[in-house]
Amino acid sequence: MKTAISPTRVENYPEWYQQIIRAADLAEVSPVRGCMTIKPWGYALWENIQRELDAQIKALGHKNVYFPMLIPASFLAKEAEHVEGFAKECAVVTHTRMVRDETGKMVPGSPLEEPYIIRPTSETIIGEAYSRWIQSYRDLPLLLNQWANVMRWEMRTRMFLRTSEFLWQEGHTAHANATEAHAEATTILNLYANFAENWLAMPVIRGEKTASERFPGAVNTYCIEAMMQDRKALQAGTSHYLGQNFARAFNIKFLNASGVEELAYTTSWGVTTRLIGGLIMTHSDDDGLVLPPKLAPTHIVILPIIHKAEQRSAIMEYCDKLAHQLRAIHWHGRKLEVEIDSRELGGGEKAWSWVKKGVPLRLEIGGRECEAGNVSVSRRDKTYRERSTVPIDALLADVPQILDAMQTGLHTRARDFQTTHTVEINNQTDFYDFFTNGDGGFASTHWNGDAKIEAKIKADLNVTIRCLPLTEDAHVRGTCPFSGEHSAQRVIFAKAY
Amino acid sequence: MKTAISPTRVENYPEWYQQIIRAADLAEVSPVRGCMTIKPWGYALWENIQRELDAQIKALGHKNVYFPMLIPASFLAKEAEHVEGFAKECAVVTHTRMVRDETGKMVPGSPLEEPYIIRPTSETIIGEAYSRWIQSYRDLPLLLNQWANVMRWEMRTRMFLRTSEFLWQEGHTAHANATEAHAEATTILNLYANFAENWLAMPVIRGEKTASERFPGAVNTYCIEAMMQDRKALQAGTSHYLGQNFARAFNIKFLNASGVEELAYTTSWGVTTRLIGGLIMTHSDDDGLVLPPKLAPTHIVILPIIHKAEQRSAIMEYCDKLAHQLRAIHWHGRKLEVEIDSRELGGGEKAWSWVKKGVPLRLEIGGRECEAGNVSVSRRDKTYRERSTVPIDALLADVPQILDAMQTGLHTRARDFQTTHTVEINNQTDFYDFFTNGDGGFASTHWNGDAKIEAKIKADLNVTIRCLPLTEDAHVRGTCPFSGEHSAQRVIFAKAY
Repeated sequence: MKTAISPTRVENYPEWYQQIIRAADLAEVSPVRGCMTIKPWGYALWENIQRELDAQIKALGHKNVYFPMLIPASFLAKEAEHVEGFAKECAVVTHTRMVRDETGKMVPGSPLEEPYIIRPTSETIIGEAYSRWIQSYRDLPLLLNQWANVMRWEMRTRMFLRTSEFLWQEGHTAHANATEAHAEATTILNLYANFAENWLAMPVIRGEKTASERFPGAVNTYCIEAMMQDRKALQAGTSHYLGQNFARAFNIKFLNASGVEELAYTTSWGVTTRLIGGLIMTHSDDDGLVLPPKLAPTHIVILPIIHKAEQRSAIMEYCDKLAHQLRAIHWHGRKLEVEIDSRELGGGEKAWSWVKKGVPLRLEIGGRECEAGNVSVSRRDKTYRERSTVPIDALLADVPQILDAMQTGLHTRARDFQTTHTVEINNQTDFYDFFTNGDGGFASTHWNGDAKIEAKIKADLNVTIRCLPLTEDAHVRGTCPFSGEHSAQRVIFAKAY
Repeated sequence: MKTAISPTRVENYPEWYQQIIRAADLAEVSPVRGCMTIKPWGYALWENIQRELDAQIKALGHKNVYFPMLIPASFLAKEAEHVEGFAKECAVVTHTRMVRDETGKMVPGSPLEEPYIIRPTSETIIGEAYSRWIQSYRDLPLLLNQWANVMRWEMRTRMFLRTSEFLWQEGHTAHANATEAHAEATTILNLYANFAENWLAMPVIRGEKTASERFPGAVNTYCIEAMMQDRKALQAGTSHYLGQNFARAFNIKFLNASGVEELAYTTSWGVTTRLIGGLIMTHSDDDGLVLPPKLAPTHIVILPIIHKAEQRSAIMEYCDKLAHQLRAIHWHGRKLEVEIDSRELGGGEKAWSWVKKGVPLRLEIGGRECEAGNVSVSRRDKTYRERSTVPIDALLADVPQILDAMQTGLHTRARDFQTTHTVEINNQTDFYDFFTNGDGGFASTHWNGDAKIEAKIKADLNVTIRCLPLTEDAHVRGTCPFSGEHSAQRVIFAKAY
């Protein structure tokens, strides 16, 4: 069967991913190394993610702020692990003007005394501010967040998944004690997990990173890990308990209720435009993008099918009225977004363009539907040919349930996929076989906690420990198949993006 | 009379401005040269501006996108005037990592082959994309916008008014003919003007810039100019008709309906976080910030006044119920934002903190109000002592009208101020006197169009032509008082930010 996207997932998964982005017109590679241009359809997805996440973050008492994008290079150096983690991939601003050289070429002029780096993350510049803003326990907790662009000079980039510049939100909080700060980190982890499950329809495993995968400067890094359709893992969000590391580096101190000076406890956490990559790879098929309805920029497209000129005005009027009625429906905090596509294009080409863009519902209306008061309904989660003709009133009554069913259906399908490809593996041979000859996926396996074993598996198989799951069923004692030693819990191994 | 802000506007206007920002906790100077940190109260203002402007821009058919923040230095050089305008104030990225030198100091490593500049504006990188995206007249008009940070290395900076990094929206459109592109530029100018008047309550004059004040690369630059309380002008938004200048530089061509290749016509337009500076300086008084209610992060603050411990629960319950009822009221597209301030602070200190933050309505509730079913209402546009006690039901019924009256009142007061300080001046002596010995303001004066006269006045008085107003009453023929020559219209001269 011919598919709209070529190659298919089975034929060439990485190339399929690029073609999905192109066919849905989400983004393109830019002339700036490693950076992408996010086009209207892709940016509308990000706006929908932002709107909902921002509301959820604010509902927990966080407020938004904006810190400068440039960070004095000396700030980076204040936290020892942090500088090691980020110095090797940061864009450095060294001059503040361009001038013409003797050949007429534009070259950098006016060197800066101290260079700036473009923020790869903002713990350092925010830490400096917190040291001034926080004086007393009455100033705590301090719960701030910002939506910003950040830059990490990555060697291998892929649109949405890993780009030199990306968009994100970064939360930064300070607390009077470790318990509260730690609770903040897990509260946010749960917020991210629920958002992934309920909005992106992307099932995730909540867990903690091993020391080698921790955020540079963190005490604990928590994460959500999703499984893509090639059975690789995608780290989709992280929440860090920073202990007093950044408080010490930036001198964030407060007088406690007894008048004694203490270092504060801080957290940081973020999700990025990478979520869009996760959404694409979780749901899309060989005909194009598939969007979870709750995040779709357009929920419904109406396609007038006009064969004779004299039908035009009646059909268009019918479409306008239907669009108007649908737009009055509220669904999960938004009015339904409905578009009428009246471009002069063949009906097939037109419908396929919306299939590729992942719009949940397509409504076709020709002379017959118009006369009978009907509409032909196609769902993006069914095949292109499958459609049902129903009376307008029935559609209007059922639309919210149809969209709910689609949202739930995508989640269930992805959850089943993840479950099917998550396997408990208890010996080393099976483990190596799973990742070399087998299909791969998530291996739930015991591990003694030794970083050398972790490193060897990475070197041998390019497989990493995605996380130590927080779920109870992972907390069973057992034997590490790589060392024969005691293991306190199962961990998730996988290849990853 | 003692004022909450010292110095007052009369005593030292620039310092008063800084103190307003500090007292309302809007922002602070950052350790990054020329950049500010926008704090929660200031950022909430920007979010409110964004939400409304974004909806208005989208309602005209524009879609949001995101282009990389880095621009290859060679792109900047493609439009001759553009590069001259921006090369002297751009931050240049020359390296992509920091390394330790022999002394252990972090210094730039890995030099780039071609440097990048941080966008001072995005015409060039967007022009490159448009040259690929636009092929046929069917691709036009292309109406895009982005919300982004930009950087211009300014020598003298002032919070919100002129900072090295600032936040803005930048619209970029391409059209098939000059008429349509020109109409776009004026449509957006009108959108900006209406937003300034109706949301910021800031009266503006719409006009065109002279050649010397044009955007580098533009054919026409249109602007809105507002008058601050020190009678200086603030350029609050610009909309540029770029003709075919950028289309030529970036090869943006399309096949017209007759199959002939043509260069497109483009526009660009933007407003920035400077609008917040305009808002502050238009309305605030010697007691602190005054917010137009439509943009206030909090419309109403409830202040429980508890003198005896046994009153606490009754008063708090009463406040909670009132907040709940007020929050159910929709006003100009938002639910009313209501905060209860139950901090343990003296009543005076607490109330003054909200005066300084500019919250439109303060409701005080003590034992007496609680028993009588009343509330004591103070309006930010009246003096601190002025308050009225009204029954809760009356308040609930009247709140929308009260806020409307405050919004309109602020606008009227600012409009009157602008009118009072805009003077028709018809001879050179009066003109020089107005700007040296007089109070200054806007001088509506004839001018023969000679850039040399414009330059001399700037050198003599630090006064510039703010714009050639678009209004009919400015389009009267007359005599230029500086040259004795014919003048086609009056123009606005003023000192400016």
